[in-house]
Amino acid sequence: MSYSGYPSKLLENAVNEFASLPGIGRKTAFRLVMNLLKRDPEEVRRFGECVIRLHGDIHYCNICHSISDSETCSICSDEKRDRTLVCVVENIQDVMAIENTRQYRGVYHVLGGIISPVDGVGPSDLKIDTLEEKVKNGGVSEVILALSTTMEGDTTNFYLYRRLNKYNIFLTTLARGVAIGDELEYTDEITLGRAINNRNPYQQ
Amino acid sequence: MSYSGYPSKLLENAVNEFASLPGIGRKTAFRLVMNLLKRDPEEVRRFGECVIRLHGDIHYCNICHSISDSETCSICSDEKRDRTLVCVVENIQDVMAIENTRQYRGVYHVLGGIISPVDGVGPSDLKIDTLEEKVKNGGVSEVILALSTTMEGDTTNFYLYRRLNKYNIFLTTLARGVAIGDELEYTDEITLGRAINNRNPYQQ
Repeated sequence: MSYSGYPSKLLENAVNEFASLPGIGRKTAFRLVMNLLKRDPEEVRRFGECVIRLHGDIHYCNICHSISDSETCSICSDEKRDRTLVCVVENIQDVMAIENTRQYRGVYHVLGGIISPVDGVGPSDLKIDTLEEKVKNGGVSEVILALSTTMEGDTTNFYLYRRLNKYNIFLTTLARGVAIGDELEYTDEITLGRAINNRNPYQQ
Repeated sequence: MSYSGYPSKLLENAVNEFASLPGIGRKTAFRLVMNLLKRDPEEVRRFGECVIRLHGDIHYCNICHSISDSETCSICSDEKRDRTLVCVVENIQDVMAIENTRQYRGVYHVLGGIISPVDGVGPSDLKIDTLEEKVKNGGVSEVILALSTTMEGDTTNFYLYRRLNKYNIFLTTLARGVAIGDELEYTDEITLGRAINNRNPYQQ
């Protein structure tokens, strides 16, 4: 069944909008719109306003570039966070992932992507200048490069290393090794090789 | 990774709204919202307004109860359609499916569901009174019961039969049989049995 010939232009427009989202086909979009149609008008209005406010009212933190409801995000304005420790991540999903571990008490710097020549993303498309500025102005003792363990991540790490190496800071990366819960048998050889080379003293 | 601790309340609200849609989990909702955030503000505003207008501006046809941009839908107000032929369907998806066949020149009547005691849907929840009214007022020669071939569909068919039987109209249902393109080997026995009993003269 093809969904041509919608009985209503408004319906068709709404289906088109939902179908423009990644991973949502026209059939799914239609199902979502029909679900909205069955709801209370008040609920649907709230849904639409939420979407509109996304762009209108959302801020990007003027220090770390993470998403925020105010000029400066809650992490950067938290007095208890260690501002000498800056964790460089690709996007806000990564900030949330690290925050969820409750292990990190420093601040973040969100690049807004990684260097990827294939996708046409170069260093100038990322928030690298403001990172260097932060480091140059002093007050930063360690920059943790917490990017993906992909070729693009490694390229970006190397580029950042070259930009930041001249300043008097520690440059660190996340520990690589066998993930907790993983069976050795199914761990890829590169990860396992690194885990052997970077072995740690046994802790009870 | 659990998506607790959103850096922004606006973001969290939008994720919650998308996650309320059927088949959309929190991770997918987050991905959809992040996609919207990366777009032009104008595009996102249009998305939101489309959703809001869904309820505010959409009409239900005052004759067949299908979705419409005006008081009467384009099918019911089409002079070329045969108004003596009324096809009873569950919802507007079914109207669209039948319209896509380009085989039907009558009009529709959208029940808005089928009788389903399990889901608490009784005859009074459906647009059955207006159907009976139409038939009673005359001008209808045939009512086609085009409901799903499920237990609920059969129940609704039987209920409609009892309500409409007393009027001077033909009551018909869709032909049941082996679907075009189906292999006999994989056709269920009930469908195949009916197809044998209701066999038609061979047409070249």
